Amino acid sequence: MKQIDFSNTRINGGFWAQKQSLVREVSSHAIYKRFKETGRFDAFKFDKSVNPHFFWDSDVAKWIEGVAYLASEKREPELEAIVDELVSEIAKNRDECGYFNIFHQIIEPENRFKIRDHHELYCAGHLMEAGVAYYEATGKRELLDLMCDYADYIERRFLIDKDTDFVTPGHEEIELALVRLYDCTGEKRYLDLAKFFVDERGASDEQGYDWANNIYNQSHKPAREQFTAEGHAVRAVYLYCAMADIARKFGDVSLKEACERIFEDISERKMYITGGIGSSHLGEAFTAPYDLPNLISYTESCAALGLALFAHRMLLIDNDSRYADVVERAIYNGFLSSISLDGTAFFYTNPLEIMPDLHTRDASTTDNSMWLPIMQRKEVFDCSCCPPNILRFIASIANFLYTCDDNAIYVHQFMQSESTINVGSRAVKISQKTDYPYNGKIELCTDSDVRLAIRIPEWCNTYKGETVKGYAFFDAKANEPITIDFEMKPFFVGANPRVAFDCGKYAVQKGPIVYCMESHDNGKMLRDLYLDSSADFSASWNDALGVPTLTIDAYRRKDTDKLYYRKGDDTTDLYKTSATLIPYFAFANRGEAEMQVWHFVK
Amino acid sequence: MKQIDFSNTRINGGFWAQKQSLVREVSSHAIYKRFKETGRFDAFKFDKSVNPHFFWDSDVAKWIEGVAYLASEKREPELEAIVDELVSEIAKNRDECGYFNIFHQIIEPENRFKIRDHHELYCAGHLMEAGVAYYEATGKRELLDLMCDYADYIERRFLIDKDTDFVTPGHEEIELALVRLYDCTGEKRYLDLAKFFVDERGASDEQGYDWANNIYNQSHKPAREQFTAEGHAVRAVYLYCAMADIARKFGDVSLKEACERIFEDISERKMYITGGIGSSHLGEAFTAPYDLPNLISYTESCAALGLALFAHRMLLIDNDSRYADVVERAIYNGFLSSISLDGTAFFYTNPLEIMPDLHTRDASTTDNSMWLPIMQRKEVFDCSCCPPNILRFIASIANFLYTCDDNAIYVHQFMQSESTINVGSRAVKISQKTDYPYNGKIELCTDSDVRLAIRIPEWCNTYKGETVKGYAFFDAKANEPITIDFEMKPFFVGANPRVAFDCGKYAVQKGPIVYCMESHDNGKMLRDLYLDSSADFSASWNDALGVPTLTIDAYRRKDTDKLYYRKGDDTTDLYKTSATLIPYFAFANRGEAEMQVWHFVK
Repeated sequence: MKQIDFSNTRINGGFWAQKQSLVREVSSHAIYKRFKETGRFDAFKFDKSVNPHFFWDSDVAKWIEGVAYLASEKREPELEAIVDELVSEIAKNRDECGYFNIFHQIIEPENRFKIRDHHELYCAGHLMEAGVAYYEATGKRELLDLMCDYADYIERRFLIDKDTDFVTPGHEEIELALVRLYDCTGEKRYLDLAKFFVDERGASDEQGYDWANNIYNQSHKPAREQFTAEGHAVRAVYLYCAMADIARKFGDVSLKEACERIFEDISERKMYITGGIGSSHLGEAFTAPYDLPNLISYTESCAALGLALFAHRMLLIDNDSRYADVVERAIYNGFLSSISLDGTAFFYTNPLEIMPDLHTRDASTTDNSMWLPIMQRKEVFDCSCCPPNILRFIASIANFLYTCDDNAIYVHQFMQSESTINVGSRAVKISQKTDYPYNGKIELCTDSDVRLAIRIPEWCNTYKGETVKGYAFFDAKANEPITIDFEMKPFFVGANPRVAFDCGKYAVQKGPIVYCMESHDNGKMLRDLYLDSSADFSASWNDALGVPTLTIDAYRRKDTDKLYYRKGDDTTDLYKTSATLIPYFAFANRGEAEMQVWHFVK
Repeated sequence: MKQIDFSNTRINGGFWAQKQSLVREVSSHAIYKRFKETGRFDAFKFDKSVNPHFFWDSDVAKWIEGVAYLASEKREPELEAIVDELVSEIAKNRDECGYFNIFHQIIEPENRFKIRDHHELYCAGHLMEAGVAYYEATGKRELLDLMCDYADYIERRFLIDKDTDFVTPGHEEIELALVRLYDCTGEKRYLDLAKFFVDERGASDEQGYDWANNIYNQSHKPAREQFTAEGHAVRAVYLYCAMADIARKFGDVSLKEACERIFEDISERKMYITGGIGSSHLGEAFTAPYDLPNLISYTESCAALGLALFAHRMLLIDNDSRYADVVERAIYNGFLSSISLDGTAFFYTNPLEIMPDLHTRDASTTDNSMWLPIMQRKEVFDCSCCPPNILRFIASIANFLYTCDDNAIYVHQFMQSESTINVGSRAVKISQKTDYPYNGKIELCTDSDVRLAIRIPEWCNTYKGETVKGYAFFDAKANEPITIDFEMKPFFVGANPRVAFDCGKYAVQKGPIVYCMESHDNGKMLRDLYLDSSADFSASWNDALGVPTLTIDAYRRKDTDKLYYRKGDDTTDLYKTSATLIPYFAFANRGEAEMQVWHFVK
């Protein structure tokens, strides 16, 4: 199965065109502005006064990657000029052996490759991805070449001389980056180095931060013996991406099996309905199966995004719709919630429930030790990994659209778009016309006869045709559109009874989109609103937010002065009202408010 | 209205006789043993090597008070010998001016009355209560005399010389203790000193611990302007006790009104259904109205006990059954849960829900920063204020039974007992025969004609007779028993919709007893058990625990491998099962288990 890069697609309207123009026109500049103000760009001039953090390199690298993806579609001279200046600083300031790391070159030169948790290889990996992307988008290869030198140096130190104080990095990323560097350059040594880092992980007793155990960075077992998703969620999914890449490229069966079991562990035991993962703020980590609390959900934006990357890689190994279903769940919900509707602000954590009152409950002490996610997006964070990650992800969202083999094009996601795909030796143009994700009707048209495999989304329970691993096959005729129409009615979703905090409650989903309630639309005390699950939803549109809404009959208890009352007393009387829901991704765009994804029903 | 002390009553059978013999035979010795082992007793010898904590004095003082109450009913030579030795150590080691404080005399003599939060006056107060109790029970007055000297010294320093570094203590207690000292000795200066501490509280800007604001110890406003329950819950209710005492003894209307408003704030906005108060572990404090989370409820044993003390004092001001109802709610639930059924172990915090899985959810870090209450009682704590408080409270439980005026005896609580009460100039013998709280039938008999005012419990909704402020009046004839039978059927209780964590759920109560579910009886995943609120409960008895049980039809969802499912799918099918509940006070006597007080119903 062959990956069809986003660069083969032009998103020419609809949902994702709006998001892409938002990140092009707003987010790319907004992130630059805040990173510039915080010294992240000046740090590349080795300006020690800006006090560089040990992974600022990666923040800027992801921004470069995002700019590259934007430039791939339409050149961005202003932004490219900034990138070009950064590249010249890297060229100027890098070590003669090819090493480049701002923090380690100007603050702790004595600690090069000595401290496993210092993110050197993580930063290197992101710079490599940036180098590949910038070259592929613009043809400018200086950064790519610099990064090849750097990769060569890393290979020498880690793989040949073995004179570093650790074997595998504390934060994974370089593994998948080296695979990309190999894909771009054809240099097999980079793929072998990626495999080396995957092979060595957990093979020896490498520890990391003293407040974490070696589960935290997936060093508790050799990769091939890891069957459950553990530890820091972003680290984890970046590793799983590389494991899937290596499994595919080497035909490594045991690695593939580990990936499959890990994917199942995530998608059937450790994933929020939004596709968010990593439920604990302690270690930003996966925890026990079914441990998915809503109020204290961590669900880092980068983790949801990384889950999509991992799931898509699994699709390249085994074309099963469960992988693309998870991609869809993440990109429309737990990932998409991370960016404000105006493109300027970002969530690091993406809670599934907000009770503002809880944030100020402890009136008599100066501290509130109960960890709670922030309630509003921010322009920048001290640890600002998410904003540029979101930029590069949205700019390359079409990566998830298609794969192909020699006979057929596999249609995984639905976006208004035009693509050119090499199927065997033929270049096939394929277009989608659709208002997805708000409407389930998709018109597919190709310019030559070709076999199409279209994913039947997990949420669609009305499709009656035959499917293979969740895909329906069609023989498309040149210029004869195929129309498929997935009936998109709102429905209630229950969670496994083992998910304690969802018991007695249901979520609302329409198509791939999970809806939520905010007190802006429903008044406070959302928890005491009981949706009438036998009633029909009516759909509408919120002009101010630019999103659809769903309204349904609901009930509330009468307000009362009584603290406790006997069931059956007057107080228990419910009065009829209605509840209005908005897409989860659109929450927290109107100021602090109560929000919930899981609702009581009647 | 006149208080009838427990010493006028003999509990001669039934529920409380069992509890009293338990604390006499087991708890009094168990607490002594653990306090002895931890150095609390040796500290009175001024043995510096035991490294005394700055409020150990009060731990032992409450134990002395408990021993006194036991001795009041039946002398305890072995325990009294220990007390007598302690008293001689106090006499030997106290300062010549009457001051006695182990920590300040041997560790920080330079800080006498300089640090507001050092609990000197708190310890003094508990020693005064012990001195009064020990004198009243045994006639031995040495400790009482020592404490009068101490009170004189405190009066001189705080009220006359005013040469201390603070005006009011960081932890209230001495205020109510001085009232008791006055009641016992008739020395009006002690009452005036108590009033001084109440009057001065919040009058100037006195601060306490640097991590708390002056709400923490009720210093944010003058007492007469405090209309809401704030800050550290035990400190708060001890203050409110003193405020009620002063209001009553001085006919102080504004103080009485403050007490009434505070009581309403607690009972209608800040009290768990168990009578537990102080919902936050941060500052062990009251928080916002309706902020009553179950999993992280703090609800200190001493706070529930203190609420009963405050409520009873309010009853002496205004004979309204809502005060005695709160006493009843606390003593049978949130207080009684604090002692194990075998009398050896104690809860400091009394959670309303336990999920053992949550205590180990963060597998990859060495810390779990989410505060959760302990799941099993302990024999002793570093801060072990609760165990001896529980001892003295149970030993004197009959304090809550009666009050009287010149014409009538007011029957507030129901316990198998015999009492002698001076009504006007007559000594009236009154007896109760009852299996309360497990049966609502009470037979009251007096040895002469007397008017009885019997509280109709808040939970009883079948009583049809006339009542005045919740009391039904009867003219009892000598030796002609009056039988009252409160129908005791289990019922479901709802909470105010503003209590977010109780929304959609109901508690189960029978008579004054709140019931709970434990996984011992129902299997794990209690949260996914839906009680059939239209079914009838059947009552039974758990011999091992020695408590009644309630069983009712219930439903569970089928277990499934699916993490999420569409409502209406097979997975939503419920299967019929049953749920068994035990009294809340009996939870956590069979090892760690899930427990919950609030249940979903169907």
